[in-house]
Amino acid sequence: MSTPNWTLAERAHKMNPSAIREILKVTEKPGIISFAGGLPSPKTFPIEAFAEASAKVLREDGAAALQYASSEGLPVLREFIAQQLPWDVSPDQVLITTGSQQGLDLVAKILIDRGSRILVETPTYLGALQAFTPMEPRVANIACDAEGPDPADLARQAAGDGSAADRARFVYLLPNFQNPTGRTMSDARRQALAESALAAGLPVIEDNPYGDLWFDAPPPAPLAARAPDNTLYLGSFSKVLAPGLRLGYLVAPKSLYPKLLQAKQAADLHTPTFNQRMVAEVIKDGFLDTHVPKIRALYKAQCEAMLAALTREFAGLGVEWNRPVGGMFLWLRLPAGLDSVKLLPLAVENNVAFVPGAPFYADGGDPRTLRLSFVTASVEQINIGVAALAKTLRQALA
Amino acid sequence: MSTPNWTLAERAHKMNPSAIREILKVTEKPGIISFAGGLPSPKTFPIEAFAEASAKVLREDGAAALQYASSEGLPVLREFIAQQLPWDVSPDQVLITTGSQQGLDLVAKILIDRGSRILVETPTYLGALQAFTPMEPRVANIACDAEGPDPADLARQAAGDGSAADRARFVYLLPNFQNPTGRTMSDARRQALAESALAAGLPVIEDNPYGDLWFDAPPPAPLAARAPDNTLYLGSFSKVLAPGLRLGYLVAPKSLYPKLLQAKQAADLHTPTFNQRMVAEVIKDGFLDTHVPKIRALYKAQCEAMLAALTREFAGLGVEWNRPVGGMFLWLRLPAGLDSVKLLPLAVENNVAFVPGAPFYADGGDPRTLRLSFVTASVEQINIGVAALAKTLRQALA
Repeated sequence: MSTPNWTLAERAHKMNPSAIREILKVTEKPGIISFAGGLPSPKTFPIEAFAEASAKVLREDGAAALQYASSEGLPVLREFIAQQLPWDVSPDQVLITTGSQQGLDLVAKILIDRGSRILVETPTYLGALQAFTPMEPRVANIACDAEGPDPADLARQAAGDGSAADRARFVYLLPNFQNPTGRTMSDARRQALAESALAAGLPVIEDNPYGDLWFDAPPPAPLAARAPDNTLYLGSFSKVLAPGLRLGYLVAPKSLYPKLLQAKQAADLHTPTFNQRMVAEVIKDGFLDTHVPKIRALYKAQCEAMLAALTREFAGLGVEWNRPVGGMFLWLRLPAGLDSVKLLPLAVENNVAFVPGAPFYADGGDPRTLRLSFVTASVEQINIGVAALAKTLRQALA
Repeated sequence: MSTPNWTLAERAHKMNPSAIREILKVTEKPGIISFAGGLPSPKTFPIEAFAEASAKVLREDGAAALQYASSEGLPVLREFIAQQLPWDVSPDQVLITTGSQQGLDLVAKILIDRGSRILVETPTYLGALQAFTPMEPRVANIACDAEGPDPADLARQAAGDGSAADRARFVYLLPNFQNPTGRTMSDARRQALAESALAAGLPVIEDNPYGDLWFDAPPPAPLAARAPDNTLYLGSFSKVLAPGLRLGYLVAPKSLYPKLLQAKQAADLHTPTFNQRMVAEVIKDGFLDTHVPKIRALYKAQCEAMLAALTREFAGLGVEWNRPVGGMFLWLRLPAGLDSVKLLPLAVENNVAFVPGAPFYADGGDPRTLRLSFVTASVEQINIGVAALAKTLRQALA
């Protein structure tokens, strides 16, 4: 079909389909065991609690729950979020978003000009790169180790070539159980990063979708708690309640809030009223205090099952992996000479799927890496799937 | 609080709080009768049907209803939308959006470069101006009469100064019961506009949130039905079911769909799954065929009540108004010398509120105009409120 009249914006040419989405199409095969997706376990969705809450909200206040509402979000939800965060946050700083992905879109709109430099971890969350791309930034990788970004490299790269135009607009960081690597920043690393960013005049975007999903101990205090005026914090109900409601939030320095609010209003007027009311009803009497520990226990058991299976099945294959202390993902590195993108079709033939690591790098990436989710498949499937992965590797190495 | 490190994008400086939102703050006063807001009547919300649907969706398919879902939207909803539109639409062309406001945001992202010229009606929907502004277009008004835009002026303005850079990227049109004026384009005007746009190589964005709310006869066929490849169409469930679910849709020429989908994915991953399932459940057995006529009857009665009150109370005051054939709004023009922005505080003192017309003009505007909603207040309130408005006018003219 020819459509000669439509002229795309230049930014549209830079936008691309999610590489992972394309990869996942390859893995759509009946009976396959998938470690590829980033889906929370549906076992953790409190369906009964939602059923009660939706009935109650519609019965007691249906007209308000179905009407237009304020762009800032439901006051009771903003208060809940402000109260449960471990630093001094006013409800006025909380903006309810249509999932935390929308928070990234709003951040990009108000902070990125075409050509602005921004800094990200190596590797980083693909959805953030997708949210930032339409505003046409130049994206630079910070050197990272198993604890996350190197504070010295962060300070070096913040300044760019020294010109005002090259000064990075922000650094995007995921301190807890990072997607894709599952790594967590230590307390010392967080402190060093917060101080290094502050000294370099570099604002921080802190994304924390997984922070509640710790196994044995809560993670160290967020970066926002260490430098509140220098940090814009993103949170989500997707991993502790359910992602299908698309409910997230931003916590912003007060000076930034009005612009974020204007961007939110322009983007979708407000986050669905009904969803906000339903979640407020579910969580109001301490529900998360008993619910979230169940998710932690489940995910910890699944992570341990996957680590045990890797130890058992991958012995002698030369594969390295990490031991996450929370979250949903672990990160593997194949032996030299292998490429996880090329390995995937062979894995799919053996009825198991993963996500190659390369798409998570802003600029190139290590072809030997791959991400495994340990939360969507059952323990039995984990055992079968990891064995199938080991078989795949032996075939590739043969 | 000083935040020296944050540098706003240039586009952020162009974003502004909604003028109407600021105006509405003036009108927040207990006991006031407000014709100002654009809120559907909560009497029309099918609360019982939503309660049954949400219970059923959670009981029968709760895990799927609460999980991540595809960016395109729920297949059964896309099929429903494609089928009920009065031209040949494939479900593959339908993108479910988080309210039709998000559709405008996606359109802006993929079609507007900084400095691109776009054309709008005089006056036009304020939310569209807000959605377009962050992408930094130059906005031009097309000359309009009681039937909408002048096709000859549209053709003239499409070309701009004749350079490629000045050629308008699109024209944004609201053919049915337009917000803010309540006016409707005749069949002949639609045909002339569709042909004029096609001949000028000018794509059309057609926004139709109110089209189902006709009083006596359905409006003429949409512009999209007359030039499908040249038209991107936006629709919404906000006015026929409930706005608090934020459920809208785009219907795009097939060549544009992939870029809209990528923009959607980057913006919020997908529209809330639960809301899509709930609405699909409510509408599946012809619910709208019996529900929407009730809304039409209610709004027609309310519109007639307001017209009768205006005729009765405004006699001899020199005010002009139109007779909408559907929708939620009517449009007034005050006698020469009056300014509706200045009149508002006096009206609020008399316990009645409206929205001044000026903010709806992309560039200046007629200070004598104002918008009245006839759907939120009851008939009794309409009678009292219009009398209070007449009293206000007499005070201003004295």
